[in-house]
Amino acid sequence: MSTQPLEFWFEFASTYSYPAAMRIETLAARAGVAIAWRPFLLGPIFQAQGWNDSPFNLYPAKGRYMWRDLERLCAKHGLPYARPTIFPQRSILAARLALAATDESWLPALVRGIYVANFAEGADIATPETLGRVLAALGQDPQPWLERAQSQSVKDALRGNTDRAQALGLFGAPMFVARGEVFWGGDRLEDALAWQLRGA
Amino acid sequence: MSTQPLEFWFEFASTYSYPAAMRIETLAARAGVAIAWRPFLLGPIFQAQGWNDSPFNLYPAKGRYMWRDLERLCAKHGLPYARPTIFPQRSILAARLALAATDESWLPALVRGIYVANFAEGADIATPETLGRVLAALGQDPQPWLERAQSQSVKDALRGNTDRAQALGLFGAPMFVARGEVFWGGDRLEDALAWQLRGA
Repeated sequence: MSTQPLEFWFEFASTYSYPAAMRIETLAARAGVAIAWRPFLLGPIFQAQGWNDSPFNLYPAKGRYMWRDLERLCAKHGLPYARPTIFPQRSILAARLALAATDESWLPALVRGIYVANFAEGADIATPETLGRVLAALGQDPQPWLERAQSQSVKDALRGNTDRAQALGLFGAPMFVARGEVFWGGDRLEDALAWQLRGA
Repeated sequence: MSTQPLEFWFEFASTYSYPAAMRIETLAARAGVAIAWRPFLLGPIFQAQGWNDSPFNLYPAKGRYMWRDLERLCAKHGLPYARPTIFPQRSILAARLALAATDESWLPALVRGIYVANFAEGADIATPETLGRVLAALGQDPQPWLERAQSQSVKDALRGNTDRAQALGLFGAPMFVARGEVFWGGDRLEDALAWQLRGA
């Protein structure tokens, strides 16, 4: 194992974070690299760039391309996919829940479950019902986890992550930080892992 | 050889088009896929999206990342690199020259030479001097080619390419069109070639 983890910065509303979240655990384990899961919110970062919506909605040509590309990517990696009817989804509760579960062994499975709900099952991940269903499928009691997700310390931790993302110069998702080097986009996951291993 | 060529849409001012232009001939030959070289201008396409400059200049965080990423990519692929002092460069004459040389066997070498001038040699590719030097290095007499580049038919052909790019929904560079499927970004070159081969 590399001494430092690879930081995986993801946003539950982000389309390209979905395949990355589904692939990263297997690839990192194969490379012997630990992962630090870093949920954050893109909204405040987009707002600082003058955007009040996803660039995929603001720039229709880019959006049309992205949906087709995402569909192809999911097919390539054998991932379930159904274009969500709501985009982008309100991801704050999901991000808080992932932070509340930071130290749990089932965190990666929770993250994947929320992404599948969003990008394959047509569910609304803003609701406690959807998140509770994902928790229950992992054998967890939903109520206490949803309460922890709304605690002040978790709210502060998410604000802290988003501030740190901005300080790191992150401007999209997914992004990876490997020994101080920033990589943007799921198609850079392999490069980020290789960079991390150089310092192992 | 696949019956239809893979379309390679590139802009001489585009940073990520540089590694793609350097890699495509070898990779396509290995795959047995012919290439249709399609120079076009991003300026009119960016303007239609409300941008009067490269998004890498308009969004500084994105720009800072891109320059570092480009440097890493060039190192990965063994390509020479020196960050240009002018960005984006005025690429209209270079694009016309590439169109004038469409049917020449040395077109790929010309394209690579212009990119190297821009992204490794600190040259100004807007000038006839730089383009003439690239032509001369290929054993071509610069003057007649630079004149052909300024002919009305070539000017019209470049306008036609840029219009077609817009009609195809292209919004950046490099882009590849493989049997009607659009792929964006040099990191999708392998995927585009694989897509082309499915129909071979």
